[in-house]
Amino acid sequence: MGVELPFRTLYWDGDEGGELVLLDQTALPDEERYVRLKEVSGVWDAIRRLVVRGAPAIGVAAAYGLYLGVRDLDEEDRLWERLIKVRDYLLSSRPTAVNLRNALERMERAARREKGCGARQIKHTLFKTANELFEEDVRLCEEMGRYGAALLPDDATVLTICNAGALATCGIGTALAVVYTAASQGRRIKVIACETRPLLQGARLTSWELTRVGIPVTLICDNMVGWLLSNHRVDACVVGADRIARNGDFANKIGTYQLAVLARRHRVPFYTVAPSTSFDLRAPDGGAIPIEQRQPDEVRSVWGRLRITLENISVYNPAFDVTPAELVTAVVWEGGVMRPPLEEAITAALGENS
Amino acid sequence: MGVELPFRTLYWDGDEGGELVLLDQTALPDEERYVRLKEVSGVWDAIRRLVVRGAPAIGVAAAYGLYLGVRDLDEEDRLWERLIKVRDYLLSSRPTAVNLRNALERMERAARREKGCGARQIKHTLFKTANELFEEDVRLCEEMGRYGAALLPDDATVLTICNAGALATCGIGTALAVVYTAASQGRRIKVIACETRPLLQGARLTSWELTRVGIPVTLICDNMVGWLLSNHRVDACVVGADRIARNGDFANKIGTYQLAVLARRHRVPFYTVAPSTSFDLRAPDGGAIPIEQRQPDEVRSVWGRLRITLENISVYNPAFDVTPAELVTAVVWEGGVMRPPLEEAITAALGENS
Repeated sequence: MGVELPFRTLYWDGDEGGELVLLDQTALPDEERYVRLKEVSGVWDAIRRLVVRGAPAIGVAAAYGLYLGVRDLDEEDRLWERLIKVRDYLLSSRPTAVNLRNALERMERAARREKGCGARQIKHTLFKTANELFEEDVRLCEEMGRYGAALLPDDATVLTICNAGALATCGIGTALAVVYTAASQGRRIKVIACETRPLLQGARLTSWELTRVGIPVTLICDNMVGWLLSNHRVDACVVGADRIARNGDFANKIGTYQLAVLARRHRVPFYTVAPSTSFDLRAPDGGAIPIEQRQPDEVRSVWGRLRITLENISVYNPAFDVTPAELVTAVVWEGGVMRPPLEEAITAALGENS
Repeated sequence: MGVELPFRTLYWDGDEGGELVLLDQTALPDEERYVRLKEVSGVWDAIRRLVVRGAPAIGVAAAYGLYLGVRDLDEEDRLWERLIKVRDYLLSSRPTAVNLRNALERMERAARREKGCGARQIKHTLFKTANELFEEDVRLCEEMGRYGAALLPDDATVLTICNAGALATCGIGTALAVVYTAASQGRRIKVIACETRPLLQGARLTSWELTRVGIPVTLICDNMVGWLLSNHRVDACVVGADRIARNGDFANKIGTYQLAVLARRHRVPFYTVAPSTSFDLRAPDGGAIPIEQRQPDEVRSVWGRLRITLENISVYNPAFDVTPAELVTAVVWEGGVMRPPLEEAITAALGENS
């Protein structure tokens, strides 16, 4: 089996003195360009500007960022002081994906276990933990792919939004892991990708990624979903998640909610695919998830390159929305497939981790 | 009352030897530029390229186009021959808006009543009939505005898609006539405009037009509708129509169907506003309405100016969709407000015209 990717979204290059390498997603699909980061400020900026995006990838990038933020310190007290500052700084980069918080908390817990052992040892642990988070994410993608693929019929046509693919993770993706795994099993899978305004992750990233891997993809505008479902066979909607609350409500790219409403109307199964690192059991429901509002110019222009409306026009620009659990057919995570009632399934599977 | 517009979408300049003037909508909002046409080929091209668009405006433009297409002929037999050719030629420009067919049929009927009276008299009648269609469209907009405004609460927030405004008609619009009329009655009306990919009529035209007239407008991406309705008060969805079938199903810009699904879920009234010239009683239901498929590059790029995906990516690009009558709260036309069951209301109001 195994899926070979012809690009790398995020990796660490070298030993503890090395650097974080990111595929610059703001330049895709025009250019496959990598940026190399040795400072936490560069990581913060890369997360903020969506050079790296996708909940799992953000989590791992932030973990490496935390390490980079304290790497220059040789004195333990100063390191603890800095650790807190850098953690809060990174947390401020983007609010919605809980992977960021989960990864930083795990880094901090690992460091705290070495308290008193000296800066060198703590830094070593931070580096090792970031690498573990990376490796774990690769593995989680594979597990999700395996469980998700089993839900699809052969010759499946899958509708997705945004990019929940390899470009959103350290491995083969979340939603798209399902597609890649099914394809690697010799099944004929087609993807329909919503372009996903305002930042066009579907048009720019998902189409590019699937084409690079050799999966057939058709691009639609976000307002074509309803008519598509009225006129064409779609076997499943498969999407990622930036944060799943305890009751199964989840935040994902703006447009996911209406996709779920339309899937329900047209009786198309709707699957959310996300690793345990995207769950937030402290959030009882979707109402507790912070929704990032981004700059109005993202809507007033396209890809920051072409203005499409009057200069100061008023704009609404939530980057995410919340899909209520009632619209979810199942949640695929690395441990299997959760079915409604989701709150019971989630607390049974992840309750002790919360 | 009366709404003053600071621009003209379409008008005839001069006497029978004059020319058709169109505001070039492909250049908005960057530039307010007018094109002057003296040949039917220019009119066909203007309709095809959306220099002029919107079902009622297309109908009137085609009527003037038919006149231009025969203006050079002085011999009656040759005129009849040409009339049929030009009629079919204009009919081929765009398939969905029935106003095109309705206007051309009315032109032809008027001409036929002068059969045998000579080319000069027939051309005079064609010119007069095109002018009548223009004047009638102005009046229909006012009537629809008056009936529609009565459906809105004071301080209404109205959600719309595409452009069903002055830019789509010879007058103050269809859906936006309702907004203008309510505003002219001293009521505080706000509009939320879906940007309407792929050609961005909401971002480029509706935002521009409302801003020019002084109505507050907020622009959203098409995938934000569901979340908007979950979080903000919207009093009504008000949209235009390119063709209304006998049972009340109607074609309108792609995205209208899912807007209607979401409005229903969130219990927001959904109003279709269209003059009798947009009804097609020969179409029993939405299945009989031809849906225009446009060039894939419209989706692969934005406004023909910026490519946003890989060059040969597969694309789905229906320009319209069909909203089933069951999702429509009421249809506003120049004769009043039609309520469900729409088939009964439509045949009662328009049956003899079919």
